[in-house]
Amino acid sequence: MVEPAIRPQPHRQYQSRLATEILRRLDQVLPVGDGPYPLHEPLFAGNEKKYLAECIDTGWVSSAGPFVERFEAELSSFTGLHAVACVNGTAALHTCLLLSGVSPDDEVLVPTVTFVATANAVSYCGAVPHFVDSEADTLGVDPDRLAAYLDATLEPRNDDVWRNKVSKRPVRALIVTHIFGHPPKLDRLKAVADQYGIALIEDAAEALGTFHESAHAGSIGDCAALSFNGNKTITAGGGGAIITRDPDVARQAKHLTTTARVADGFDWTHDTVGYNYRLPNINAALACAQLEQLPRFLAAKRRLADDYIAAFDDLPEAAVISEQAQAHSNYWLNTLLLKEKDRGTRDHILTETNSTGYHCRPLWTPMHRLPMYRDCPAMELTTAQSLFESVISLPSGPALRLG
Amino acid sequence: MVEPAIRPQPHRQYQSRLATEILRRLDQVLPVGDGPYPLHEPLFAGNEKKYLAECIDTGWVSSAGPFVERFEAELSSFTGLHAVACVNGTAALHTCLLLSGVSPDDEVLVPTVTFVATANAVSYCGAVPHFVDSEADTLGVDPDRLAAYLDATLEPRNDDVWRNKVSKRPVRALIVTHIFGHPPKLDRLKAVADQYGIALIEDAAEALGTFHESAHAGSIGDCAALSFNGNKTITAGGGGAIITRDPDVARQAKHLTTTARVADGFDWTHDTVGYNYRLPNINAALACAQLEQLPRFLAAKRRLADDYIAAFDDLPEAAVISEQAQAHSNYWLNTLLLKEKDRGTRDHILTETNSTGYHCRPLWTPMHRLPMYRDCPAMELTTAQSLFESVISLPSGPALRLG
Repeated sequence: MVEPAIRPQPHRQYQSRLATEILRRLDQVLPVGDGPYPLHEPLFAGNEKKYLAECIDTGWVSSAGPFVERFEAELSSFTGLHAVACVNGTAALHTCLLLSGVSPDDEVLVPTVTFVATANAVSYCGAVPHFVDSEADTLGVDPDRLAAYLDATLEPRNDDVWRNKVSKRPVRALIVTHIFGHPPKLDRLKAVADQYGIALIEDAAEALGTFHESAHAGSIGDCAALSFNGNKTITAGGGGAIITRDPDVARQAKHLTTTARVADGFDWTHDTVGYNYRLPNINAALACAQLEQLPRFLAAKRRLADDYIAAFDDLPEAAVISEQAQAHSNYWLNTLLLKEKDRGTRDHILTETNSTGYHCRPLWTPMHRLPMYRDCPAMELTTAQSLFESVISLPSGPALRLG
Repeated sequence: MVEPAIRPQPHRQYQSRLATEILRRLDQVLPVGDGPYPLHEPLFAGNEKKYLAECIDTGWVSSAGPFVERFEAELSSFTGLHAVACVNGTAALHTCLLLSGVSPDDEVLVPTVTFVATANAVSYCGAVPHFVDSEADTLGVDPDRLAAYLDATLEPRNDDVWRNKVSKRPVRALIVTHIFGHPPKLDRLKAVADQYGIALIEDAAEALGTFHESAHAGSIGDCAALSFNGNKTITAGGGGAIITRDPDVARQAKHLTTTARVADGFDWTHDTVGYNYRLPNINAALACAQLEQLPRFLAAKRRLADDYIAAFDDLPEAAVISEQAQAHSNYWLNTLLLKEKDRGTRDHILTETNSTGYHCRPLWTPMHRLPMYRDCPAMELTTAQSLFESVISLPSGPALRLG
């Protein structure tokens, strides 16, 4: 695939003016004198030490223990879904794909705008990512362009599986990512997936506390992955979870993530190739302490988002992404989107903000530009390319607005 | 493969007599009144709480942090090898296989006597386990029978890779497991691997503190996997490590286990399909506290082993496995081996010991008998079958003999 040329950089004086305007607004939201401001720092203001000490005192630190069950129950209560804790978000995504029947030499539709784990999880199944484009308003997969693309690209086969006309590989699943906590247009994406009989998997790694029409992220897809990495809204050190409406999928997820072990008298047997994707009890203890604080964290993050949106409201060159009408975002990372003519300024602005004490970050390099995914099938990815040139994520941790 | 019939059970009175003899000796080593005795409980008698609290106070709990580097440095110092921490022993094994060039449709020689993770890690590469037999004195792969088998089974090809004559698949690696901490006959196994130009991987999940002729487990193979699961000599909750003599292999292991990320200005790129196999800092903190106590734990476990060996010395029907001349075992799990005529008593003895408060465990079901591995290539596995009928592992935690 030929990449569009990178836009020429606007001249230096103009770049500096725009950077100055952005810095002035950041200073309104987060006074520069109180910085520096990390992109997203974890916050430990609850029972973290107490629960960790409990693990040491009781001896339960590892693959079994009361905090794992408690975390699953409380996560289930918060999301309204069945929840299976696992070792990290990547493991959760891999498990979702396995449970959706993704097999070697299948294709899985994956947004090119996502963290690398989304595409890697497809590779772990021996399957091939097939990259699709995103839209600017949600940063998620564009349902209309996806529908038109699949209409032209897939063909039905006798066995009821739709295949890529060119590669002849079955297309088994569609992964949609909640980028920075913003839900994609799930109803329309679900309709597209259903039309072709493919599984819908929500990569909700960044989306704990995100809702789509009052249903938590993960409610519309067949299953979804959460992450509790250190940079997420709450953290377990590592940690992830598979969440799903379907109790059978949850049971299978638990089995597959715990080495597929089956009791057989004194003997240990395993009925399929399983995984050691268990969340240790010590990490679950941290997760329990953090989950207790989630409502406060989400409220703080929403206050910060409101402040960013207001501060940048009058800047014609860039806007802070806000939630869509159907969405309630967790605002994991507040994000500035440069307007088209200003995309060449991204690295200059990143240099200025980072050197001033605001730790800001661009979008991930789109998946189809990474060497191992360069030759994968892909639709035209023009919006992804312009998002890559225009996204700047801003400091967003809950500590920045905790009451 | 047709399984030999399970031996008929000796009559009940005889079984009871043998169980009584075994219980009497267990009571000498571990007085029944002080029980119950778990199989292998973690012991937290050092800086565990202090280091965990440090993680919370500093905010470093996740995929980066000072305890990860410290643990790697201290593990390297203890083993004399390069060490890369990762999320668990399974991930370490998978990484070792990837670094040995194991690819889809290769075969990997794997002992059928091992924990399921050993075979599963081969499956994760899309490769096929090819099962080999073990020997009774080390419980590890039998080098002589392996050499004879490979001589009859492999054929060279033009590309210098030896292939299975029947399946035509390249045989890429040999995994040898240090069962219960006992090293296999590594020099002779290394010679066999070298003869066929295949990688030697040591599954040393159970073997931290095990030495072969004064070199730590992992020193002879191309790389090795350690585990710090809750039931191991020291624990990180979860946790594992890749250890190797070769600094290049260690560098590649670090890269592959940390999403293969490459710095590129402000952008995040990844140069190959990587893994999220990082050990969180909070688990590394626990590992550091545990590693400080390792010499005491190993000394305690050795005292317990000596006591078991002495207590069972006069029992004709069973013997406690002791280290070979070339070996210094960590005695992770002390293990009783029933003599041939008494193998039918295994489950009766397990019932009696467990109900008396001694948590004892049989060997894992051999890999070639699990449904997903039943059709894999295999040599004659007669010793594995008799080991399966005769192994009883005994309570072995360090707390049982801590000074």
